[in-house]
Amino acid sequence: MKNFNYHNPTQIVFGKGRLTKLDGLVPKNSRVLVLYGGGSVKKYGTLEKVLRVLPGREIFEFGGIEPNPQFTTLMKAVVLVKQHNIDFLLAVGGGSVMDGTKFVALAANYDGDAAELLTDRGSVAAVTKTIPIGTVVTLPATGSEMNAGGVVSYAGGKLVFSSPLVFPVFSILDPVLTYTLPAKQIANGIIDTFIHTVEQYVTFPAEGRFQDRTAEGILLTLIEIGKKTIDEPTDYDARANLVWCATNALNGLIGAGVPQDWTTHMIGHELTAMFGIDHGETLAILQPAIWKVRKQQKREKLLQYAERVWNITAGTDDERIDAAIAKTSQFFQELGASTSLSSYDIGENDIDAVVQALEKHRLTKLSETGEVTLAISREILLAAL
Amino acid sequence: MKNFNYHNPTQIVFGKGRLTKLDGLVPKNSRVLVLYGGGSVKKYGTLEKVLRVLPGREIFEFGGIEPNPQFTTLMKAVVLVKQHNIDFLLAVGGGSVMDGTKFVALAANYDGDAAELLTDRGSVAAVTKTIPIGTVVTLPATGSEMNAGGVVSYAGGKLVFSSPLVFPVFSILDPVLTYTLPAKQIANGIIDTFIHTVEQYVTFPAEGRFQDRTAEGILLTLIEIGKKTIDEPTDYDARANLVWCATNALNGLIGAGVPQDWTTHMIGHELTAMFGIDHGETLAILQPAIWKVRKQQKREKLLQYAERVWNITAGTDDERIDAAIAKTSQFFQELGASTSLSSYDIGENDIDAVVQALEKHRLTKLSETGEVTLAISREILLAAL
Repeated sequence: MKNFNYHNPTQIVFGKGRLTKLDGLVPKNSRVLVLYGGGSVKKYGTLEKVLRVLPGREIFEFGGIEPNPQFTTLMKAVVLVKQHNIDFLLAVGGGSVMDGTKFVALAANYDGDAAELLTDRGSVAAVTKTIPIGTVVTLPATGSEMNAGGVVSYAGGKLVFSSPLVFPVFSILDPVLTYTLPAKQIANGIIDTFIHTVEQYVTFPAEGRFQDRTAEGILLTLIEIGKKTIDEPTDYDARANLVWCATNALNGLIGAGVPQDWTTHMIGHELTAMFGIDHGETLAILQPAIWKVRKQQKREKLLQYAERVWNITAGTDDERIDAAIAKTSQFFQELGASTSLSSYDIGENDIDAVVQALEKHRLTKLSETGEVTLAISREILLAAL
Repeated sequence: MKNFNYHNPTQIVFGKGRLTKLDGLVPKNSRVLVLYGGGSVKKYGTLEKVLRVLPGREIFEFGGIEPNPQFTTLMKAVVLVKQHNIDFLLAVGGGSVMDGTKFVALAANYDGDAAELLTDRGSVAAVTKTIPIGTVVTLPATGSEMNAGGVVSYAGGKLVFSSPLVFPVFSILDPVLTYTLPAKQIANGIIDTFIHTVEQYVTFPAEGRFQDRTAEGILLTLIEIGKKTIDEPTDYDARANLVWCATNALNGLIGAGVPQDWTTHMIGHELTAMFGIDHGETLAILQPAIWKVRKQQKREKLLQYAERVWNITAGTDDERIDAAIAKTSQFFQELGASTSLSSYDIGENDIDAVVQALEKHRLTKLSETGEVTLAISREILLAAL
C-alpha cells in the first residue's frame, strides 16, 4: 500500500425528506447565493422547497449553469457574489452546478484573472480562503458533493481544478429528488460512477485490499441496481444505493493508497468539448477501448476484475479479460449507452483533432504510470471507433 | 436504506515514516500534553521520535494510561491540563490511550463531576468546546483514531461515551510503529476489528449494498492477512491492510444507513470489567454464542455472511449458518484466541453476576431490535460456556 493522506470534512445528510435540515445547516443571518442549472429544480419544485426552509437569510439566485459549466457563465455569478457580499453558496443540482459553485467560491477570492485557476495549479494554491458551500444533490454521478474538485469549460476545453477549500461543508442527498431525472441522465450517472471506480481500481496490484474490495462493492452494486433504477425510477432503495455509490466512488476513499488512472476522463473531456457528447457517454465509449489497448499493463487487475466483479473464472487469461471487457460494454449498452465513436458519427479523420487537443492541454503522459503518450491515446481512439 | 448523517472530519496521515508530518499538524507555539500508556512507546523509541519533531511547543507528558483506562487515572491528566493551560492533546498509543485522551478533552471542559460524562448523555451534550486532539496510533484495533467515541472504566464497569467534539483533528497511522506489538495484542486487534464489522453487518437486510460489501471487504481482508500479520509482524503490506481495516471498521462508514447490533461489545465490556479478560478475547467468546442464540433473527444476514465471506454454498440454510459460525470460531482460534468462557475458568455460577452488571448499567434491551433482554443475555452467556 502506498502512503496517503485522507481527509474529507463534508457532512452528508442522506435520505428521504432531509431538505428540512437545511435550516440548521446554512448559517443564520447569512447572505446566500443559491445556484442552479437549467430550470428543472424550478419545474419540479425543489428550489421552492429549498427557499421555504431558509427563513431569516437574504437569498439571491443564480440560475442557468449549463452542463459542462462555462467559465463565462460562472464569472457572472462571481460578479453577483461580490456585488451582494455573499457569504454562503448553496448549489442545488448535479455535478455541473456543484463544480461551477466550487469555481465561483475560488474565483471570488482570487485577485488575478480567474481563468488562471484552470490553467495553473499554483494560482489555485494561492487562494487561502473561500466562501463556504453547501449542496442539495439532484443528480447522482460526479461525487462532487463530497470532494474537492471540479471541471469547468474554458476556451474550448474542459479543465480540472482542485482545492481542499472547496469541499462542501454539507451535502443533502435525498434520493427522492432524483426521481424526475430522464433515464438517459441516470444512465450517464451510473456510467460515470462505474468509471470513477475502475479508474482507481483497474491499474496494477498495490496491496490495497480494503480499497479494492470497496471498489468491487460499488461495481457489483451498480450492476445489480443499474437497470432497475432506470426502469423503476421511484424504487427508493435502488436509487438510494446508486446515490450513495456515486458519492463513495469519488470522495477519496477507494483511491487512498492505490494507483489511479484518469485516462478515460481526460480523453473523455476532449470528446465532450469537441463533439458535445455527454460526459457519461464518452466514458462508455473509451473505457473498453483503453482496456483493449492496455491489456498487458493492467493484466493482473483486469483478471481480478473479471473474477470478482463478473464471476468469470473459465478460460485462459486473455479469454477471461476479453470476456470482462465484453461484459462491461454490454452493461453500458443495456443502460442505453453506445460504446463506439462511430455511433456518434465520429470517424478516423476526427482523431487527429482530439490528439491535438490533448497535446494543447498537456495531457501527454496519462495513466497510472504516465506511459499513455499521445501515440497511445491515438491508438485508444482508433480502438474506440 | 435508512436515513443517516455521516460526518468524519479526522485527517488521516497513513504510511511509512509519516511521524515527521507531526510538525505541520500540531499548532506551533501550542502547549501540548502527550499522553501514553505503559511504557512501550518509550521502550521502542516512538515517544522520543514524536518529541524530536515538535520543536517550539511546550511539551508536557502524562504516561501510565492503563488498558481499559480508569476514570481516576484520567482525572489526574485533567488536573495537569488545567494546571498548565494545555491547548493540544497528543495521544500516542492504542485504543485505551486514545479513548482516555478523548475523555480528558471533555472532562477538562466540563463544569460538574466528570463521572457524569460516563453515566449521563445529557452531560456530554452540555460540553460545547474541547481541547483539540491528535493521535499517533501504535495498535490497530479500536478505530478510535477516526471516530467520536470512547470507553472508560468507572466504578467497576466499562462505560461508553460519544461526542462529535472528540474526533481527532488528525491521526498518524504508520504500520511500522506496530511491528513490536506482541502477537496476542495483534490477535485481539484483528478480532476487535472483525467484531466491529459484523456488529454493523450481521443484523437484518436493509438495502445497504455499499455498506454490506464494504463490511464484507474488511472481513475478507482480515481472513486473508490475519494469521500472516501475526506470524510475520514486519510484513509491511499485511500490517498496513490490518491497520487501515481497523480504522474503517469503526469510523461510521459501514454503519451509515444500516441497523447496528452492539450486543457483543456491551456484554464483552462486563466480562472485561468483572474478570479481567482482554477486550478482544471477550468478543471471540461471545460472537459465536450470540449468533447461535439469535440465528432466527439474523437468518438472512447470516446466510449472506456464510456465502460472501466464507464461500459456503452447500447444505440447508441451517447447515450453512452453522458452518459459518464454526468457521468464525475456527478463525479466532487460529489467531490464538479461545472461544469459550470455560477456558477462562468462568462457569455457570458466574453468569448471574454478569447479568446483574448488565442490569446495573441499564443494558436490558440490546441488539439491532432492542429485543436482547437480560434473559436472552443469560442464554447467550450459557451458550458461551
